[in-house]
Amino acid sequence: MKTLTIVKIGGNVIDKPEALQRFLTDFALISGAKILVHGGGILAAQLLKKLDIPVQMHEGRRITDSETLEICAMVYAGWINKTIVAQLQQTHCNAIGLSGADANILTAIRRPPLPFDYGHVGDVSPSGVSAAALAEFLQNDVTPVICAITHDGQGGLLNTNADTIASTVAVALSKMYDTRLIYCFEKQGVLATPNDDASVMPLITPAEFESLKAAGIISKGMIPKLENAFAACIAGVTQVRIKHADNLLSSKGTVVQCEK
Amino acid sequence: MKTLTIVKIGGNVIDKPEALQRFLTDFALISGAKILVHGGGILAAQLLKKLDIPVQMHEGRRITDSETLEICAMVYAGWINKTIVAQLQQTHCNAIGLSGADANILTAIRRPPLPFDYGHVGDVSPSGVSAAALAEFLQNDVTPVICAITHDGQGGLLNTNADTIASTVAVALSKMYDTRLIYCFEKQGVLATPNDDASVMPLITPAEFESLKAAGIISKGMIPKLENAFAACIAGVTQVRIKHADNLLSSKGTVVQCEK
Repeated sequence: MKTLTIVKIGGNVIDKPEALQRFLTDFALISGAKILVHGGGILAAQLLKKLDIPVQMHEGRRITDSETLEICAMVYAGWINKTIVAQLQQTHCNAIGLSGADANILTAIRRPPLPFDYGHVGDVSPSGVSAAALAEFLQNDVTPVICAITHDGQGGLLNTNADTIASTVAVALSKMYDTRLIYCFEKQGVLATPNDDASVMPLITPAEFESLKAAGIISKGMIPKLENAFAACIAGVTQVRIKHADNLLSSKGTVVQCEK
Repeated sequence: MKTLTIVKIGGNVIDKPEALQRFLTDFALISGAKILVHGGGILAAQLLKKLDIPVQMHEGRRITDSETLEICAMVYAGWINKTIVAQLQQTHCNAIGLSGADANILTAIRRPPLPFDYGHVGDVSPSGVSAAALAEFLQNDVTPVICAITHDGQGGLLNTNADTIASTVAVALSKMYDTRLIYCFEKQGVLATPNDDASVMPLITPAEFESLKAAGIISKGMIPKLENAFAACIAGVTQVRIKHADNLLSSKGTVVQCEK
């Protein structure tokens, strides 16, 4: 099987033009088939604030009303996605920016309104991924750049977590490619001591994850990120890593290791 | 040669959700290869106003500073493009939303800063169109939906007139397809009496255009629209029409006829 590298890049890097350009230069150097998945929550939050649209949260998750969906689609699929694609084209990486609606690559299911209505939020599963459409791009040496906007197949756009998209796409393509998944963000990896970048764990197992979660050392956004990472690992993705965006091409960071 | 239909849809229709949905339902019914090109200036102007970003004009043309470019990319490539694509997917038209940067389909040249600097504005010519990339989509029954954002190949995005994109893409593909180009907007066609929809001309020639322009009957935005239409006609596009968005599938409207 050919190799495929799927990289997820987080909002804290996207927000810094120089860090983003450095990252994209590295990304373009990855040989073989590759896919980039990006979020952009920080820029969306800034625009929502400028427009006086309140950011509504419930149990740590954003509620996406119609106005918020419009802003998220604009920021993720418009400005950020096209900025990334134009910069990749400059490095002669033939990128194509995609939401889930484009070429129908990713259909999501709107989250049920009970027990709580999160609005225009969609959940994805590997069965919603058009692996054939993505493989067609990869075979033509075109690099998909996927943003965190999906669709419901009924004409509606949905806001979807970018970490989950990366994991789900990796699982769907792991039947066709020897797939590795890399989560890049602003920390060195999974930290054994919060905020101490020197404490990066070279490897994490599900048992260690449960124990660090119980101890409150792994918390907040790292919990769903690691859940997505383990889900990919268990479902057949060959290698899953979490690392700093500056270390994309190095062996630094944390290997997410499930028992197989 | 196979047939190809390229349709340009204007901001006055995009702005009205019901009219847009009606139009897209008709568009999906066009048989054979097809491409949709859209603008979105009205929605962009609304967002610029909300954000207190002044709309700067010079001789009737918008100046695109960095902030304006960001808003235009968000509105055109983000919200409008993805809304259209999701609605086409609902009708089982397998659409893909594209800026010029995506798959490198359309490289523009930034307009020279002298005699006047219009900012991040790009001009396109048929040599900047990747006809092969567009034909690849069409051969796979994928329908490109192209927004009015291009790139310069140097990492920068550019604002480009959607009427010109439609004409330029039509010319570039007319060597591979028997191409017809349809400009859809909020009027019945080219009007012999301004504001009288009953005065629609069934046909217009370059001589009539010059005479109506000199008489001030054809003015403002209709001038570049017709220039684009004649340019396509002269360069080998089989049929060029200007009509109301509600009449996409009918024979109504104005045929733009050049002397060949």
